[in-house]
Amino acid sequence: MPLRMSTLFLRTLRDAPADAEVASHQLLVRAGMIRRAAPGIYTWLPLGLRVLRRVEAVVREEMDAIGAQEVHFPALLPREPYEASGRWEEYGDGLFRLQDRKGADYLLAPTHEEMFTLLVKDLYSSYKDLPAYLYQIQTKYRDEARPRAGLLRGREFVMKDSYSFTVDDAGLDDAYEAHRAAYLRIFERLGLEVVPVKATSGAMGGSRSEEFLHPTEVGEDTFVESDGGYRANVEAVTTVAPEPLDEAAMAALPAAEVKETPDSTTIAALVDVANDLAPRADRPWEAADTLKCVVLTAVVDGGERRQFVVAVPGDREVDVKRLEASVGPALGVVGEPTVEAAAAEDLKRHPALVKGYIGPAGAGEIEGTPVLGAEGSVSGLPLFVDPRVAPGTAWVTGANADQRHAFGVVAGRDFRWDAVLEATVVREGDAAPDGSGPLHSRRGMEMGHIFQLGRKYAEALDLKVLDVNGKQVVVTMGSYGIGVTRAVAAIAERYRDDKGLAWPRAVAPADVHVVVATKGEDGVAAALDLAEGLEAHGLTVIVDDRAKVSPGVKFKDAELIGVPTAVVIGRGLADGELELKDRATGEARTVPVADAVAEVVAEVRHGR
Amino acid sequence: MPLRMSTLFLRTLRDAPADAEVASHQLLVRAGMIRRAAPGIYTWLPLGLRVLRRVEAVVREEMDAIGAQEVHFPALLPREPYEASGRWEEYGDGLFRLQDRKGADYLLAPTHEEMFTLLVKDLYSSYKDLPAYLYQIQTKYRDEARPRAGLLRGREFVMKDSYSFTVDDAGLDDAYEAHRAAYLRIFERLGLEVVPVKATSGAMGGSRSEEFLHPTEVGEDTFVESDGGYRANVEAVTTVAPEPLDEAAMAALPAAEVKETPDSTTIAALVDVANDLAPRADRPWEAADTLKCVVLTAVVDGGERRQFVVAVPGDREVDVKRLEASVGPALGVVGEPTVEAAAAEDLKRHPALVKGYIGPAGAGEIEGTPVLGAEGSVSGLPLFVDPRVAPGTAWVTGANADQRHAFGVVAGRDFRWDAVLEATVVREGDAAPDGSGPLHSRRGMEMGHIFQLGRKYAEALDLKVLDVNGKQVVVTMGSYGIGVTRAVAAIAERYRDDKGLAWPRAVAPADVHVVVATKGEDGVAAALDLAEGLEAHGLTVIVDDRAKVSPGVKFKDAELIGVPTAVVIGRGLADGELELKDRATGEARTVPVADAVAEVVAEVRHGR
Repeated sequence: MPLRMSTLFLRTLRDAPADAEVASHQLLVRAGMIRRAAPGIYTWLPLGLRVLRRVEAVVREEMDAIGAQEVHFPALLPREPYEASGRWEEYGDGLFRLQDRKGADYLLAPTHEEMFTLLVKDLYSSYKDLPAYLYQIQTKYRDEARPRAGLLRGREFVMKDSYSFTVDDAGLDDAYEAHRAAYLRIFERLGLEVVPVKATSGAMGGSRSEEFLHPTEVGEDTFVESDGGYRANVEAVTTVAPEPLDEAAMAALPAAEVKETPDSTTIAALVDVANDLAPRADRPWEAADTLKCVVLTAVVDGGERRQFVVAVPGDREVDVKRLEASVGPALGVVGEPTVEAAAAEDLKRHPALVKGYIGPAGAGEIEGTPVLGAEGSVSGLPLFVDPRVAPGTAWVTGANADQRHAFGVVAGRDFRWDAVLEATVVREGDAAPDGSGPLHSRRGMEMGHIFQLGRKYAEALDLKVLDVNGKQVVVTMGSYGIGVTRAVAAIAERYRDDKGLAWPRAVAPADVHVVVATKGEDGVAAALDLAEGLEAHGLTVIVDDRAKVSPGVKFKDAELIGVPTAVVIGRGLADGELELKDRATGEARTVPVADAVAEVVAEVRHGR
Repeated sequence: MPLRMSTLFLRTLRDAPADAEVASHQLLVRAGMIRRAAPGIYTWLPLGLRVLRRVEAVVREEMDAIGAQEVHFPALLPREPYEASGRWEEYGDGLFRLQDRKGADYLLAPTHEEMFTLLVKDLYSSYKDLPAYLYQIQTKYRDEARPRAGLLRGREFVMKDSYSFTVDDAGLDDAYEAHRAAYLRIFERLGLEVVPVKATSGAMGGSRSEEFLHPTEVGEDTFVESDGGYRANVEAVTTVAPEPLDEAAMAALPAAEVKETPDSTTIAALVDVANDLAPRADRPWEAADTLKCVVLTAVVDGGERRQFVVAVPGDREVDVKRLEASVGPALGVVGEPTVEAAAAEDLKRHPALVKGYIGPAGAGEIEGTPVLGAEGSVSGLPLFVDPRVAPGTAWVTGANADQRHAFGVVAGRDFRWDAVLEATVVREGDAAPDGSGPLHSRRGMEMGHIFQLGRKYAEALDLKVLDVNGKQVVVTMGSYGIGVTRAVAAIAERYRDDKGLAWPRAVAPADVHVVVATKGEDGVAAALDLAEGLEAHGLTVIVDDRAKVSPGVKFKDAELIGVPTAVVIGRGLADGELELKDRATGEARTVPVADAVAEVVAEVRHGR
């Protein structure tokens, strides 16, 4: 039976909802595919649900094709396994936690590493049982701090997550490559260009890891690539640092010297003042010669605000997202803190810092005394440095005294730090760490993520098998995710125009949209006849049989909904003719009624 | 591709798990179909997941056939709509509640009346848009006090829930009948006998309501039926009460009299003593002449223990489940309390009650004073009576004095009560309330439930449409549920024997199970050939190709898993013969290899 618009549970909207900023979100709501139930939580209406199921089917087929087996875990899970792996804590506020009527702790699972590990432990005991690839397509939960962009970053969403269990690293490599190849096929079938890039592994743990980023302006990720083939999420890029000097070489450098630098509270002003009052012999001072000490606040789980300082070359900007990915362990906190500029309130708590003249050591009354650093410094503020601030590099930096800077301050000799962190924005033209040339950056949306977990979870939950020699060995794991809900949004974002959505055939809510643009019963009868013929060939059909709706409104709705092929039953019907229209190109041609089924089937099967 | 047992993620178990009492639960775990993740929360393994999906497909087809449209709601929902309908409170401890990182209240939905109501309100505005039937197949959550019997009563489970929206009661009747008919077709296709019975509507509200009970010994429900066609869940049966007497007639009855009744703390002893010491002229005293006052405790949400008394004829037993269904409103509490016998501790709080001699009024020091009843009585304990305790009925009952009972105590004259409740066990042979004859009782399992909700939710959430006269009318709703997870368990319970499961074809995890019982490569090659041929006809196939497993173990596993048709590739292969075996009957026959595909396809398509 075709979907008949006269009874279909659908209301298209002319205007975008107030809370929708991103085009795909606006269109999915306007086309009656999804509806917001709560922040980051959506209801699927009939047409949207069809798209979702078709995306799931593509994912399922490709997972089955690599020998992965489908299972289905609960979303509501007990605390214990996540406690054992450490993730109950590590996930911080991002985890939905609850208690049952007996007061036992539960969570809504964000991913299922622990449960898969326990399941395999429950069933398997020998290397002969491995490799095993298991997956599910299942509803996941994350209490995002900033749910946004409709389905792009939700709090309840569908994911395909799979896990590989192998007896050794070679097996893991095979599993990883199999998933990598399956992912490339999946995204190709879904019509989504993706770029696999090196990634950090965050709360998942593990070693090798790649994200599949779909290049798009609405993406939340930035990735870089070099002409030589280096590709990484910007959070995972490693900075090429200068060679460090040894103690003797450092000691041989000229001593640091504090100078008057009036009105030099910005890097630009400092460079001007330095060139004016203390010109160097070889070349002018540049921003890259200065060391900028930026005070930031990490808001950790529970809301505590902890200040710290990052020291970066004066020509570089701090990258808050990269810092968020790395600062947690450096501060000794679990979870991923939010990093923001220190507020005036935060700064008041550290009177040793002289605004505009902050530096690692002091001048005047505190001359020579460390000002920054977690231990033994005047402020007690942790100091983290960019990799470019290598031992032996010399800097112009604040002297913690008004209108004064220190020149020739040598890192590792004149000041120390608590950790080296990737803290600066990766710039167009920066060098790729593998020497493959300058980096170019693009924005992308994470569509999938594959991890070589190694033995973290298997060790935490004691998953071992007997190896070929009869010895107990810890199983090696991989974990592999695809955001199914997000894929729907990404496809909607990629395939649209000013008229609405334009789905690729593989995931369209129907194959054909028949618009009845005649008055009277004939048109509807012809449409239903055609639909029957098309359905006999396995196609899915929407028929717009609404009685008191104008052809103009019907065309607009068809374009908004975005089924790839439309058939218009109009005045030509009297002459035995229909119009075939391609949603994406807008091209139309006339076909005889008698040939319509064959023509449409050919178009759907072999067309664009 | 067939499922190959050599790599299938499956371990069958010889022994039932310790926590599984019910046969279906034991077998589903032993056959590697499900696995417990937490109390009442299960993981679906590959074969179990296939059964679940096939049950879902049957439900989906029949819902689509009555014009219901599929949508999908979130499980995680905000508090507000449930607050508006009153269910946030009414559900009591049965609802999983949680807060997000901002402290906003959420719940895991037990059903979705509120959300569907709001969705229709969002999209529709006119009688022309109605009727609308919407459904979803979705994961539900209930924090059951006593999760049990594996999938039969879980805390996370899959349900099909649908909702009808109509402009008036006539439309609701149509929707109700359409669902009723669809349900009968669904359960027939699933191979589950069901009996539609009158039901109470519990926390759902609404008027007409029927449960679809599957008669089985492991069912938690008891239902009754008369030869004349009356059928009801035992909780919904109404007792045939005697005609009440008016005040004058009651006053004319003999006065009550307190008598010595030594050692008469049981009904049997009391009847003996009464016949001994105070014989009546017309006939001997019987248990039915005595009024038994039973002290019970309702444990309400939050754990508070509230005592009350039910007075029932001495020959009747109190039915705790029926009381639980009705006592909440009588006690003025929201939610459904748990009812249990009053503990010794509870009784100590009511010293006016004399154990073994409890009655509505007192003798001795408190002669003539009301002892039971929420207001103005000595105990202050609420008194509820069975409908048989009608005004004007006379009873022998305790006098609240040791070794004494009162005779000729007239209900409504000598004592009053707070409410009439259905409080006693319905007995074999009790009269049907519609006069259709004596009742017989059976145990059953609730497979589905249909409700005429009426306007409760639409009113609470202000869902109105314009009617044909342009006036705003409140929409009329129905709600209809099927326990999909539970259906899997019920089918497993119904179709099994001492060897294992024996699935009906419509929901079996595969159509054919090919057992390779030969040594060497030939058998596996023949099995894979056969599987390919069967799959070309659209059948799903399991091939047991395990190398170092004996034929005996393979046969046992095949019987445990319960695929309807098995093909055994054994010694006959050399002579071009295979064995076809029916799981349910055990019948086997030999077929030539050349005819095997055709024979098996015919068997699967047209066989039992």
